[in-house]
Amino acid sequence: MTELMSTRITVKKIAEICGISQPVVSAVLNRGKSASNIRFSQETADRVMAVAQENGYRPNRVAQNFHSQKHQSIGVLIHEAGNIAPDAFRNLLRVSSSEKQLICFESIQPDQKELPLFLRKDCVDGVLLFEQLDPQIHEAIQKIKLPAVSINARPTSQMHHVVFDEVDAIKQAVALFDRGGCDRYILTRTFANPQHYSTHERVSTLRWLAHERGLPDPHIVDMDLVLTGTPEQKMAVLDELLELLRKPGKVGLIDTGKFTTLSLIQTIHQSGRNVPTDLMHLYLGNDPTNDYSWPSITRLTVDMPRVIKESVHDLQRLINGQKPVGPPMISYQLFEGQSTKL
Amino acid sequence: MTELMSTRITVKKIAEICGISQPVVSAVLNRGKSASNIRFSQETADRVMAVAQENGYRPNRVAQNFHSQKHQSIGVLIHEAGNIAPDAFRNLLRVSSSEKQLICFESIQPDQKELPLFLRKDCVDGVLLFEQLDPQIHEAIQKIKLPAVSINARPTSQMHHVVFDEVDAIKQAVALFDRGGCDRYILTRTFANPQHYSTHERVSTLRWLAHERGLPDPHIVDMDLVLTGTPEQKMAVLDELLELLRKPGKVGLIDTGKFTTLSLIQTIHQSGRNVPTDLMHLYLGNDPTNDYSWPSITRLTVDMPRVIKESVHDLQRLINGQKPVGPPMISYQLFEGQSTKL
Repeated sequence: MTELMSTRITVKKIAEICGISQPVVSAVLNRGKSASNIRFSQETADRVMAVAQENGYRPNRVAQNFHSQKHQSIGVLIHEAGNIAPDAFRNLLRVSSSEKQLICFESIQPDQKELPLFLRKDCVDGVLLFEQLDPQIHEAIQKIKLPAVSINARPTSQMHHVVFDEVDAIKQAVALFDRGGCDRYILTRTFANPQHYSTHERVSTLRWLAHERGLPDPHIVDMDLVLTGTPEQKMAVLDELLELLRKPGKVGLIDTGKFTTLSLIQTIHQSGRNVPTDLMHLYLGNDPTNDYSWPSITRLTVDMPRVIKESVHDLQRLINGQKPVGPPMISYQLFEGQSTKL
Repeated sequence: MTELMSTRITVKKIAEICGISQPVVSAVLNRGKSASNIRFSQETADRVMAVAQENGYRPNRVAQNFHSQKHQSIGVLIHEAGNIAPDAFRNLLRVSSSEKQLICFESIQPDQKELPLFLRKDCVDGVLLFEQLDPQIHEAIQKIKLPAVSINARPTSQMHHVVFDEVDAIKQAVALFDRGGCDRYILTRTFANPQHYSTHERVSTLRWLAHERGLPDPHIVDMDLVLTGTPEQKMAVLDELLELLRKPGKVGLIDTGKFTTLSLIQTIHQSGRNVPTDLMHLYLGNDPTNDYSWPSITRLTVDMPRVIKESVHDLQRLINGQKPVGPPMISYQLFEGQSTKL
């Protein structure tokens, strides 16, 4: 230990400066907070408080937590690849700030064999899980009986969850397309993880609604290679999309891709088709980039402040041994922009 | 407390199940980790370990930390508005995962009067500060002598910092524009915070380089209203930009806006100017959306994995009372795409 560290003020240091014993300093600092039979004069108390304040002394959470056996912190577990929507992140920090609670994040690395730190060590009072995580993680949480809330992953009976209403989202999109007279549908997507419940629900609902209207089977375009492929692979995907866009008929396009809206718009420009007269473009998701497009893109977005507030609230209830009260399914809200407005 | 909580296994519970005293259980669980003169049979040890494993017992960090008086966690302080670049976030989680260290995040709310929790309570071993924060926060960190590293904010002599080489970035951009024969420059920006050192450095360097070449003064377009304005205000900003783009001469466009590239591309399309023959488009920043554009946008990007790795490493050195060793300035790297390649 060098100078840099030893300059940080401790109870011991305050005791040295004041020339009194450590228990007396502790008794002064904890006055009114915990019972103590140590007596001291007002003069001593004033001197201790002055030295503490001057040197920026702060109560130590480690010591306080040792008594309560709680961490006063929650953990957020996320997938390395999927990351977390910026508005979810922002709202998590906002809620934890107003609740005066520490919030820790951990991501599962692609090659990780060990359980997350949150589960290996008793270091958080509860966890929020984002997106689909390995079943082993769910099992470990069950075993150690850690309070947990899962967000936007396939619901299981073992864990409290909050999911987004994908079926209703596709219905809202198709209602818009009906109004605009679209006679064929395209859905673009990325991270086309067949395990993720939303992928399946979105596609099967769109198929069913197309069938119901006597329209052709929707085209599902996987855009993952636009993110991760070679230049040739990127071009191949976008050429396929370009060809689909140029076919006759009015297109209803549901864009569920992450990071791919820019390429999609470039391809629409290239196709020469007019938005919204030839093609209605609707973005389904929570990427803030698309919120700021101008001309504006119609979007279906989850009320993330609400999702986060209710999930954190329910996690706190679980930590305190109470039952969760928040709704398990949240709807998407439609914000109509110029890309579908006729 | 209800059933939900009391089912979590503790040393006390294990002792009850095994019918032995708590100190013996602790001695078994901490065997090889801490010195103890409590003796126990192999049979007892086996029984304790079996019960512990069966019930998902985990060592309690609160208890462990109480002995070391460290939290084994670092805090990341960010600005509510500015948020944090997704690749910075991802790399922070990656590094903390490989270092088996907890990482907590806290954002400063716009109306916040109190100091951040990280500074009010002794709950993290050190902090990373992202972007420009209130001088009061710097003062508080000084006062409590909390190890800290500042990232991408105006350097101060009081705190170890990592900044990005903005002057060199603009020089790299102009070298490309020279090669392409650009005879006027436009720079778009958002969050045009005059307090942020990068805003000033970028603009003054571009002015100076234009002057040096005998070119007209660059046009600086503030795009903030595209993010936050009314539809009329958005249109006014983009109309101004459209007019600038349509003027004769070959444009070198530096796009430093956050979330505004999509609108910018829509405006370029509208202007009818050809990229890169009439206009060279270069993005300066770390927004991942732009990495995935196709046709690809030339970009100048900071090596974020390196920035994060070295900042965390230096913070750990400071926590351990050592001097930081990482370079205080990191250069932008050029990735040339189709938007400037002739």
